[in-house]
Amino acid sequence: MQTTLQYIQDNKARFVDELFELLRIPSISADPAYKNEVLRCADWVANSLQKAGADHVEVCQTKGYPIVYGDKFISPELPTVLVYGHYDVQPADPLELWTKPPFEPYIEKTALHPEGAIFARGSADDKGQFFMHLKAFEAMMATQTLPCNVKFILEGEEEVGSESLGDFVHENQEKLACDCILISDTHIYSNEQPTVTTGLRGLSYVEVEVEGPNRDLHSGLYGGAVPNPIHVLSRMIAQLIDEDGRITIDGFYDNVQVVSDEERAEMNKLKDNPEEYKKSIGLSGVEGEKGYTTLERTSIRPTLDCNGMWGGYTGEGAKTVIPSKAFAKISMRLVPYQTPEEITEKFTQYFKKIAPDNVKVKVTPHHGGMPYVLPSDTKEFLAAKKAMESAFGKEVLPYRGGGSIPITAMFEQVLGAKSVLMGFGLDSDAIHSPNEHYGLFNFYKGIESIPLFFENYTK
Amino acid sequence: MQTTLQYIQDNKARFVDELFELLRIPSISADPAYKNEVLRCADWVANSLQKAGADHVEVCQTKGYPIVYGDKFISPELPTVLVYGHYDVQPADPLELWTKPPFEPYIEKTALHPEGAIFARGSADDKGQFFMHLKAFEAMMATQTLPCNVKFILEGEEEVGSESLGDFVHENQEKLACDCILISDTHIYSNEQPTVTTGLRGLSYVEVEVEGPNRDLHSGLYGGAVPNPIHVLSRMIAQLIDEDGRITIDGFYDNVQVVSDEERAEMNKLKDNPEEYKKSIGLSGVEGEKGYTTLERTSIRPTLDCNGMWGGYTGEGAKTVIPSKAFAKISMRLVPYQTPEEITEKFTQYFKKIAPDNVKVKVTPHHGGMPYVLPSDTKEFLAAKKAMESAFGKEVLPYRGGGSIPITAMFEQVLGAKSVLMGFGLDSDAIHSPNEHYGLFNFYKGIESIPLFFENYTK
Repeated sequence: MQTTLQYIQDNKARFVDELFELLRIPSISADPAYKNEVLRCADWVANSLQKAGADHVEVCQTKGYPIVYGDKFISPELPTVLVYGHYDVQPADPLELWTKPPFEPYIEKTALHPEGAIFARGSADDKGQFFMHLKAFEAMMATQTLPCNVKFILEGEEEVGSESLGDFVHENQEKLACDCILISDTHIYSNEQPTVTTGLRGLSYVEVEVEGPNRDLHSGLYGGAVPNPIHVLSRMIAQLIDEDGRITIDGFYDNVQVVSDEERAEMNKLKDNPEEYKKSIGLSGVEGEKGYTTLERTSIRPTLDCNGMWGGYTGEGAKTVIPSKAFAKISMRLVPYQTPEEITEKFTQYFKKIAPDNVKVKVTPHHGGMPYVLPSDTKEFLAAKKAMESAFGKEVLPYRGGGSIPITAMFEQVLGAKSVLMGFGLDSDAIHSPNEHYGLFNFYKGIESIPLFFENYTK
Repeated sequence: MQTTLQYIQDNKARFVDELFELLRIPSISADPAYKNEVLRCADWVANSLQKAGADHVEVCQTKGYPIVYGDKFISPELPTVLVYGHYDVQPADPLELWTKPPFEPYIEKTALHPEGAIFARGSADDKGQFFMHLKAFEAMMATQTLPCNVKFILEGEEEVGSESLGDFVHENQEKLACDCILISDTHIYSNEQPTVTTGLRGLSYVEVEVEGPNRDLHSGLYGGAVPNPIHVLSRMIAQLIDEDGRITIDGFYDNVQVVSDEERAEMNKLKDNPEEYKKSIGLSGVEGEKGYTTLERTSIRPTLDCNGMWGGYTGEGAKTVIPSKAFAKISMRLVPYQTPEEITEKFTQYFKKIAPDNVKVKVTPHHGGMPYVLPSDTKEFLAAKKAMESAFGKEVLPYRGGGSIPITAMFEQVLGAKSVLMGFGLDSDAIHSPNEHYGLFNFYKGIESIPLFFENYTK
């Protein structure tokens, strides 16, 4: 192990240079204008995987963006770890809020990252994190310390719902057969309090449309006499959450896992600093479902958020129009045992129910994903905990995350293997936001933790 | 008069050709990208006014877009009519809803316009309407029948609040001295029931911004724990109008003119066809302030409409973001004796009052305008009524319009003259909307009515 860690130490600077190359490719999967860049990124990743020492490297075509595969087989007697990551990134808008262009990475120190952080779209989500696995693998190969078989799948559609991944995994069950799946696409609680994620929320994402008049109208001539779709949609959105922060959709909480008081108490032991939390996002006050802490609201409770809304004139100056239509994108985070199908259906029913008679309402489901839980007494969890405790020199706690990696449930179902969510980002990395960044400390701790996980898991 | 009407008859086709030329200039004042087109339009109008026979034609510079002036002086013994119009137009978006490009005029028959209508941005508002005055003036000059003095001012900032017009009128009181002002920028009730507009609503237009967190956040990590500005703004907009369709702003109705039951009864004599109205805009039901008819809601009652709203991710696909900010453009139509200053102030106070403590709210006033009333026993009203009765061969009724021409109140204050709102459009012309059009019947009836107005007014 010492030789492996020494190799990592000796090659740190080059690892960052290579990551910069990867971050310069604007692989935005949500926007068709970037199609060629996403494809170029897949080739870059395949090439990098090959150079690190993988066999059978392949850019596997799908109905959407390709999945990069590669493996290293040592012995049928040894366990197999499947590493998953994604090389696509979120759109970068609003561009004007980035300090520097999102695809021109640079390093800068911050209060939370005194050693410096890498700023770029995808630096934390997920290029900087999956690239740690390529470099840890390279280190194990170079020092001949890889203790078990390893397979890689790196997809290009995570930010748009991993639509091709399910088919790919179904069709390649034998090729992908493994004992556990290792994923770095989550964050730790803090650099002082490292954690392993033991649960993730699921997702239901819909787009809604409210149509009033069949064309845009002059607000002077028609104002006050017809349903204005912006007002109607505003009222409907306002109605989705009540004064206690509870979601009003009929039956929304029916299948929600009730977390025991003991587990809630354990969870709330993580030192929560509300003042620091509020300060980091510039808020004078938090809010949410009555009876729960911020930590609980963002982990064990389901939520609903409008992620985008638009209608009418949004350009410069003033236009006195009543638009024909107004739109919103709405996502719900799910907890065990809610399912995206159930919640999307309940949302659709309810949204149509609360619409006034004189408008037309359309609900279009986008992607969804199941919630996921990894019990803290499993071999997988314990291997990750011990690896990170060695790397960080600190006790590592279990942690329930608020985000979604919908594929973990699918992996379990199809491959019969548990996913270990050993991510190294911080909550404050601004993923999906302007000025996304990833700490150099976190990047290096990640690369060090991975060979330790392999060692622990194989023992 | 017969020779004038004959001249108009003989030159009808050419008048339309010339109007097409004018409509081809995309003089969008709200969008700085069209600056050169607005300036080109001013020159075109000045040239056309000169060719029609005006003296002292001038493209007068202002802080914003120029005002085109021209006049014809006959005798100090005779009254002077000041014709006002505007050569700027509304933005054309959403472009994809136009059948043909908005600045490539064409003629097509419709159910309401069996003789055909001219389709183009600005055809009814206001190029097609002010151009009638240039052509009627040309006809009177060519047939030597102009019975009084006439002055023209044609501005290029009406659609963005006429910001330079007030200064211009103040600084040129002598030059603009007149006995009445004639404006065609309104509509008649229908081609079967022509009307003269005796009242217009005022306007208060504001833009609002709600800021929650200081940056965009990942909805998985923060959802359910922080104020989402789209939800906050939705709740605030929902709160502005109550279940009875009443605006909830403190003191909003304090100064509203109470219209007598007699006047309301008179007003409601205009044959209202609710089925036809709903059908024309594709609605199954109308709505509005309780206790008032659609006609009253759009004329004698003040209203509030959100004209645009936006926040978060509005592109293709899905993005799970909680935006830092959400925005809306909100306009209020005012009736006598509300003032834009009063209402903008009351809105601002109320909007800040209803904002939750944990968000920041900004209100930016755009332009405003005073409501206006022309009593139906004035010489000006009667001259217009009689002129249109001759041209249409039908009884003409007084009508209170819902839109705003804020400058009428300013004209009265500075020039001491009443404005006659002798517009010829139809409610259904889709002004400010895709596929704006103006009936050929209306265009010709307008050109015929104008010399008749001059004759009646001078007698």
